[in-house]
Amino acid sequence: MVAGVHFLPDAVAWRDVGWKALAVNISDIAAMGGTPAFALVTLNLPPETPIASVDELYEGLRECAAAYGVTIAGGDIVAAPAFSITIALTGDAEIAPDGAPLLLRRDAARAGDLIAVSGPLGESAGGLRLLLSARPPSSEQERCLIRRHMRPIPRLEVGRAAIAAGVRCAIDISDGMAQDLGHVCVASGLGAEVSLAVVPIDSGLAATFPGDAALMAVTGGEDYELLLTGSTDAIARTSAALETPLTVIGRMVAGAPRVRVLDASGGEVALPASGWDHLSRRPPS
Amino acid sequence: MVAGVHFLPDAVAWRDVGWKALAVNISDIAAMGGTPAFALVTLNLPPETPIASVDELYEGLRECAAAYGVTIAGGDIVAAPAFSITIALTGDAEIAPDGAPLLLRRDAARAGDLIAVSGPLGESAGGLRLLLSARPPSSEQERCLIRRHMRPIPRLEVGRAAIAAGVRCAIDISDGMAQDLGHVCVASGLGAEVSLAVVPIDSGLAATFPGDAALMAVTGGEDYELLLTGSTDAIARTSAALETPLTVIGRMVAGAPRVRVLDASGGEVALPASGWDHLSRRPPS
Repeated sequence: MVAGVHFLPDAVAWRDVGWKALAVNISDIAAMGGTPAFALVTLNLPPETPIASVDELYEGLRECAAAYGVTIAGGDIVAAPAFSITIALTGDAEIAPDGAPLLLRRDAARAGDLIAVSGPLGESAGGLRLLLSARPPSSEQERCLIRRHMRPIPRLEVGRAAIAAGVRCAIDISDGMAQDLGHVCVASGLGAEVSLAVVPIDSGLAATFPGDAALMAVTGGEDYELLLTGSTDAIARTSAALETPLTVIGRMVAGAPRVRVLDASGGEVALPASGWDHLSRRPPS
Repeated sequence: MVAGVHFLPDAVAWRDVGWKALAVNISDIAAMGGTPAFALVTLNLPPETPIASVDELYEGLRECAAAYGVTIAGGDIVAAPAFSITIALTGDAEIAPDGAPLLLRRDAARAGDLIAVSGPLGESAGGLRLLLSARPPSSEQERCLIRRHMRPIPRLEVGRAAIAAGVRCAIDISDGMAQDLGHVCVASGLGAEVSLAVVPIDSGLAATFPGDAALMAVTGGEDYELLLTGSTDAIARTSAALETPLTVIGRMVAGAPRVRVLDASGGEVALPASGWDHLSRRPPS
């Protein structure tokens, strides 16, 4: 996470930056159905960085590490023109009786698989939009959206339940649902059809951005919910093991590797070119 | 490694930056007596970075990975105001019959231990001084010093021989010999005495910087040779197993945790305040 690119240093608390930097890595382990283990933390620090900011950052890191059983085992601190934090995280996989690791992968979707997500989407994009507006949040709903942007919850329990239920394909939603599902399509050589009407949207997001909430849910980044694909049975078994059930939003189909989002009448919804571009510094819309 | 802090982007080849970024991590594994395994590579790239530079960087990374048996297993690429490369590297340790890992540590020196180094020191500092002078190298000796600065050789075989010979204390020389030996002193709660006259100096360094070579060997950074401490027997057994024998340069002593460098008459040599300060961007002198 780079200051000015992945977060706005004047708008957010360093403690939240620390939490988020580790949480998004844990989310990658969750998306493979694993359990996180050891983290290496490297800080690029401008020489004028106040020590109090680094202490606060580390409080957030420690809070997140404690919440998810991660050991911060080392790393490095270097001088640099701009602040950034890089985390490498190891994790452990369940091992099958034949000795093979049991993992969720992007390339394991099959035609006919249901597509399910672990929670409402778009809240993080809503929180980012509020942060970029530079006006203070005016309601508990708005504060909640900002919190969802800065304090993502890695869905470790979802990944592990999916592994136990026989699901083998997942991705975490970091670039935006449509874009991340597109990664699954390309890796698996399949298309995907999603029904816009059933994509879960938080009521606070819908109330705050009534006109845009549905598209924000489809294209907004940094939700860090998991998207799974699997048989009806495997998805149902996963859902049954979770406190918050999964929401089925569509189906993998044979055909060109692209995502079609369909409206209630079955017509394709045109999506704005959005989602996160890793090199252009363009924030999720 | 941050552009402008840890290397001079206009003076060096990207291929060498790639080699060095991985080699210095392998050196950390060597200093613990381990074998490197998996690397995660994160690039912070200014959007204007030419793709050819990244390709060249990766050629150097791949060259180093192949030379030392490392698998580049993943990582990340992000936009950033300044170039930097961060590598996390896992490694494996030999395991004792009782199940404990066999490691070289900074805190395992004992009073009376010999202090030995795996090769001549100061060449990298000489190469850096030539690069900073901004004049092209004028001799094969000068080119060789620059190469030693940009293409460090991690001493994996030294670390493994030390483990096999029963040595238990080592550090790699990255900040400068006196400073890194100081880390061993602090971690082990001991002092150290080094004889300046026996610190090994490369003949090319002595010819290029006749007045400064000895102090460059003592305080110059980024040699990535190993410094070991151990009993006379353990050091001798380690040395016998190596193509290039170790050089004994001093002894660990009871007392305050500081390094004393002694001249031929036993007087203490005053060292300039030097070595690498990780946050002030001050290069090794």
